Amino acid sequence: MTFVLPRYRQPDLLQKELAGAPDARTEPAPADGIAPENFHSTSMYPEYFKIGGEWRLAEKSRMDSSVVLRGDGTPAVVENRNLRRGDRVILGRTEKGEEGIYLHAHGFDESAAALSDQFVFRQGRSRETSYARDYDRLIELLRYEREHGKIVWVMGPAFAFDAGARKAMAALVEQGYCHALLAGNALATHDLEGALLHTALGQDISTQQSMPNGHYHHLDVCNKVRRCGSIPAFIGEYGLDDGILCACVKKQVPFVLAGSIRDDGPLPCVVGDVYRAQDAMRACVKKATTVICMATMLHAIAVGNMTPSFRVMKDKTVRKVYFYCVDIAEFTVNKLMDRGSLTSRGIVTNAQDFIVTLAKGLGLSW
Amino acid sequence: MTFVLPRYRQPDLLQKELAGAPDARTEPAPADGIAPENFHSTSMYPEYFKIGGEWRLAEKSRMDSSVVLRGDGTPAVVENRNLRRGDRVILGRTEKGEEGIYLHAHGFDESAAALSDQFVFRQGRSRETSYARDYDRLIELLRYEREHGKIVWVMGPAFAFDAGARKAMAALVEQGYCHALLAGNALATHDLEGALLHTALGQDISTQQSMPNGHYHHLDVCNKVRRCGSIPAFIGEYGLDDGILCACVKKQVPFVLAGSIRDDGPLPCVVGDVYRAQDAMRACVKKATTVICMATMLHAIAVGNMTPSFRVMKDKTVRKVYFYCVDIAEFTVNKLMDRGSLTSRGIVTNAQDFIVTLAKGLGLSW
Amino acid sequence: MTFVLPRYRQPDLLQKELAGAPDARTEPAPADGIAPENFHSTSMYPEYFKIGGEWRLAEKSRMDSSVVLRGDGTPAVVENRNLRRGDRVILGRTEKGEEGIYLHAHGFDESAAALSDQFVFRQGRSRETSYARDYDRLIELLRYEREHGKIVWVMGPAFAFDAGARKAMAALVEQGYCHALLAGNALATHDLEGALLHTALGQDISTQQSMPNGHYHHLDVCNKVRRCGSIPAFIGEYGLDDGILCACVKKQVPFVLAGSIRDDGPLPCVVGDVYRAQDAMRACVKKATTVICMATMLHAIAVGNMTPSFRVMKDKTVRKVYFYCVDIAEFTVNKLMDRGSLTSRGIVTNAQDFIVTLAKGLGLSW
Amino acid sequence: MTFVLPRYRQPDLLQKELAGAPDARTEPAPADGIAPENFHSTSMYPEYFKIGGEWRLAEKSRMDSSVVLRGDGTPAVVENRNLRRGDRVILGRTEKGEEGIYLHAHGFDESAAALSDQFVFRQGRSRETSYARDYDRLIELLRYEREHGKIVWVMGPAFAFDAGARKAMAALVEQGYCHALLAGNALATHDLEGALLHTALGQDISTQQSMPNGHYHHLDVCNKVRRCGSIPAFIGEYGLDDGILCACVKKQVPFVLAGSIRDDGPLPCVVGDVYRAQDAMRACVKKATTVICMATMLHAIAVGNMTPSFRVMKDKTVRKVYFYCVDIAEFTVNKLMDRGSLTSRGIVTNAQDFIVTLAKGLGLSW
Repeated sequence: MTFVLPRYRQPDLLQKELAGAPDARTEPAPADGIAPENFHSTSMYPEYFKIGGEWRLAEKSRMDSSVVLRGDGTPAVVENRNLRRGDRVILGRTEKGEEGIYLHAHGFDESAAALSDQFVFRQGRSRETSYARDYDRLIELLRYEREHGKIVWVMGPAFAFDAGARKAMAALVEQGYCHALLAGNALATHDLEGALLHTALGQDISTQQSMPNGHYHHLDVCNKVRRCGSIPAFIGEYGLDDGILCACVKKQVPFVLAGSIRDDGPLPCVVGDVYRAQDAMRACVKKATTVICMATMLHAIAVGNMTPSFRVMKDKTVRKVYFYCVDIAEFTVNKLMDRGSLTSRGIVTNAQDFIVTLAKGLGLSW
Repeated sequence: MTFVLPRYRQPDLLQKELAGAPDARTEPAPADGIAPENFHSTSMYPEYFKIGGEWRLAEKSRMDSSVVLRGDGTPAVVENRNLRRGDRVILGRTEKGEEGIYLHAHGFDESAAALSDQFVFRQGRSRETSYARDYDRLIELLRYEREHGKIVWVMGPAFAFDAGARKAMAALVEQGYCHALLAGNALATHDLEGALLHTALGQDISTQQSMPNGHYHHLDVCNKVRRCGSIPAFIGEYGLDDGILCACVKKQVPFVLAGSIRDDGPLPCVVGDVYRAQDAMRACVKKATTVICMATMLHAIAVGNMTPSFRVMKDKTVRKVYFYCVDIAEFTVNKLMDRGSLTSRGIVTNAQDFIVTLAKGLGLSW
Repeated sequence: MTFVLPRYRQPDLLQKELAGAPDARTEPAPADGIAPENFHSTSMYPEYFKIGGEWRLAEKSRMDSSVVLRGDGTPAVVENRNLRRGDRVILGRTEKGEEGIYLHAHGFDESAAALSDQFVFRQGRSRETSYARDYDRLIELLRYEREHGKIVWVMGPAFAFDAGARKAMAALVEQGYCHALLAGNALATHDLEGALLHTALGQDISTQQSMPNGHYHHLDVCNKVRRCGSIPAFIGEYGLDDGILCACVKKQVPFVLAGSIRDDGPLPCVVGDVYRAQDAMRACVKKATTVICMATMLHAIAVGNMTPSFRVMKDKTVRKVYFYCVDIAEFTVNKLMDRGSLTSRGIVTNAQDFIVTLAKGLGLSW
Repeated sequence: MTFVLPRYRQPDLLQKELAGAPDARTEPAPADGIAPENFHSTSMYPEYFKIGGEWRLAEKSRMDSSVVLRGDGTPAVVENRNLRRGDRVILGRTEKGEEGIYLHAHGFDESAAALSDQFVFRQGRSRETSYARDYDRLIELLRYEREHGKIVWVMGPAFAFDAGARKAMAALVEQGYCHALLAGNALATHDLEGALLHTALGQDISTQQSMPNGHYHHLDVCNKVRRCGSIPAFIGEYGLDDGILCACVKKQVPFVLAGSIRDDGPLPCVVGDVYRAQDAMRACVKKATTVICMATMLHAIAVGNMTPSFRVMKDKTVRKVYFYCVDIAEFTVNKLMDRGSLTSRGIVTNAQDFIVTLAKGLGLSW
């Protein structure tokens, strides 16, 4: 079965309410990082703004941000903290055209007929949900995205604890199924510890045997990478060729490592300022057409907040963005699914098994 | 890598304390189902009893049971509820020979050298534990057991909700990797609903689509099976050939379905009296050399209680019994691991992924 | 704030579709425990059946059961396993009168105005849900039910592990807040072990200290109770006066202990046949107006299946039945909440804290 | 029962191995933020270093850090990222004096007699653990610490979702039971939303009712606080007097709000650089004698890493530091307990119930 992108249905902008809607009003930001009262805040859906009598789609959107009317009439989606004094911020908290703002929530809805054989939203995902079809669909999707989209992977600190998961993920990177990777200092540290010493936190990643003084392993790895000045320099100096980050460096896949308060180290390229990290992450997400979060609540929520349900392609067509959250806890998966989008999907399982099953399903070996 | 059974080290029964130990004392059970005061209760380990000056191993043991001295001098392990008035019950609550009772907890311990490349007990199994080696070892073990042992599978009510898991398990049964199956009424009902209607509780087991009036599906299946009089008769009458129970019937693999207070139906062969069900389950477990519990706390605890750490083979050699508990909740896995045996192993993941990964690792296809 | 029962709105049986509906059809059960094809199966809601031209409410209902037309024209809700050959079983799988069957799902719906200050259904209960109001409401409800209703408590095996929880529950029983208790062999064994030895599974229930040979404690308790012949006889012989079962015996609160395959013992009054246990449980539930399940998935599902959303009182008024599920796992709570009733409510917390908070909120001390 | 601090047993530094141990060796840090090879890394226990022939205790310690020998002969515990080029870093990875380093793991161990009536370490904390004694002990401890120690509270983003939990925590702050508060941007935002609008994420914190356009609430609160320039200014301008942060501001309790990649806003005083945030948190923790983490894995791990098992008081006595982790997930609690200290204690429950029970146990009302 081959994957077919669902078509985006443009809103009917000529319908009476929308055609007659007023232009969106703006007010200047009173100071850097401050929105005016009654600022409009974005959702994850496509939103159109009436500007100079024309409805304009805000591209590169994300949730919970303001919309700034640029000088050229473009509506730009800007986090409040990134507003600059005097930015013309769109006002209004209605969504059906009353104030020149139109939210189009159902652009990717399937017809009833299509629904039965397409990605369908299913509520209440739990350990008891059947995931057979989800794996099949995701495999089709990744094959499609490898050629036509951008796949962004997001992973939690413990993802590299298992030798099999590391190998499966490295194979996905090497075979072109990863266009960017978002993680934190711990994931990178554990993965590089695996590459240098075949351990994670001092335990063998195959046999789980604890090594003597193994609690020094990650500290030594951090220290060595810091001394080398960068992850690629460290990989080069120690001649490493194994694991997730090695694969990324080899294939020139960009990665963003965000800092957190639990970090040792940190590794050189970790972004310690979380708001700059958000900016760097969003720069990756702005290109994403599929996002897969594994074994992390913090990063999954962060990325979920900045991932819209759609992407405007170079040819100006609008396509769906797929968002997966894989976690062993229903709590995490359901928290993410509360975003409430047709394009969000949760899988309740151990991320190790997920990634190995997925990579094998794609025909990869290692 | 081929699986090699660890050797059992007999206790040194000639050592001074044991050689000079008194015979074990007994007292008659005062009534059916009642043990005398100070009755000895078994553990999961091999236990030896001094009888007529000889140390005798109690074969076919289980936890938390009395030991009855049979007329022929054999020590038999009997649940208290199954004691008969006058049974000669062994007394004593010491374990080092003082009262003619010797518990041999370390018969399968590995030498330090061997430990590094053998099944090793690892504490604190969680979602973040590396399971790569566990899968490898389990695959070797199952290949061995298929030829030389008996594999008993235990599964919870929701195991049949996923099309992939059902197929993988059916393939394992058909290829000789299952010698008995222990489950409940719900598992069987859902599996047969899948065979007849391709749904579980009215949802398609591949696509999860809800069928019109699908909540009648399992009730109709129960009713039809009850009318047919047995599961094999139902399978025959409807010409079914799909799923776990069909595979068991086809390959004549015995199964015990224990009743529970949440049951609809029940299906004809379900054992509604839980103590008779325990007896039927233990009859299967008495032959088991590997037990794998998936996605059930109730059945896993029940089977855990009746599975000893060893088995006496026909040739009188003593071998290890392997016990796995696979569950998505650390709580369940750790509860079972509290049995504290080298032979117990927990895997924290979704049972669907576990079974598919395992079956593929064994080279099965479906 | 005082609790006020929501009024039941009778269905408009004179409306055209219902007034003109045909009588419900029946067919005799072909054999004991077998329903005819196309049998109607009940929901948890009030259902009316057209019998001899009159709409009759099936009282004492429960989910997933057949409806038998008694000789006096009464519709009786009977589990399929309890059907007798020749019973006139109502047929039909529509619910709006087409076949003489009418399901009244919204009899207790609040008006929009009332909703804001009443028990309101809230989706997605998790550890992050605010439960302050739920406690307040439940306290009001229990005060009301103590005088006007029947409160049935359902509890899992580990509920008696904590000294505080045992005392709080015993106080609730003694002060009239418990009209029946449903549990299993393990709960009773642990509670009586607490009463006799101040331990549970050999650990002190206050300090958690492990006692020497403490693993014999529960086995000894089982054996002693079995020798005494009954729980009250055991309590009398050993002069016990502490804990949940002592309180029940003292206050003559009925309890049903259902057997399970994980049981040791069992204690004398445990119902080993799970279908007879279901019958005994339902006999209690038929009188219940509030049901509270704590720390048990098995018993909560079992009782959830047999608890309807309404009760017909002696004066023939119809009132709401409240159903709570308290568990530390979102999975369990949400599984129960899937019953989808306005009257179901989940609380995600440790049952120990729940019961202590509740008992103190009712002004009890111990 | 009154709380009594366990006495610290000094190591016997005159014993042969320690008396004859060499001075600890050092090597200069080769660059800022880089440790020399073979650097010694600290544990959470008291560690002594032989310096100029004298054993010196490193005060204000924390895990996973280097030890810098200051010019005055003081050993200072410094995170590697905070090393400055030329700092004299202690080398060595043995702990029994061989290299002038002695780790004293058992300074607070109780005698066997004392153990039975003291805080005792208990393994395997789960939902089924009895917590009655833990509450009693913690209440005693907090009474003691209010007068003699410093209590640091750490809380996760959702802690302020419940009206009862907010009030209980505010009462604890106002009554002197909180000397510092560590949390993140989200906790503060939700708490201030509660103070201004009586909602959290737009839902009433008592009734859970969703407010119209409630998803704007937290964004508006962030924007207003940012406009005001600080949390105290916001509280003043809007005349707020309710909740956790209001109580802290009123009682001049210091708080550190650490940024994270999931933040909106952020609020003005949030520390966006996570390593500066770590420094600010550790400055608080350096004074702490009891630390209580609630409903957060990220912050609990972060604080756990920087909290040693001991504190050197002004009078140079060494006392125990107590560390609690309260979470609804066994996974989180056990992860923290893996620190393996006698002084660490986990409680598996909903943090709402925990804080209310605790505050009431201390006799507070609100």
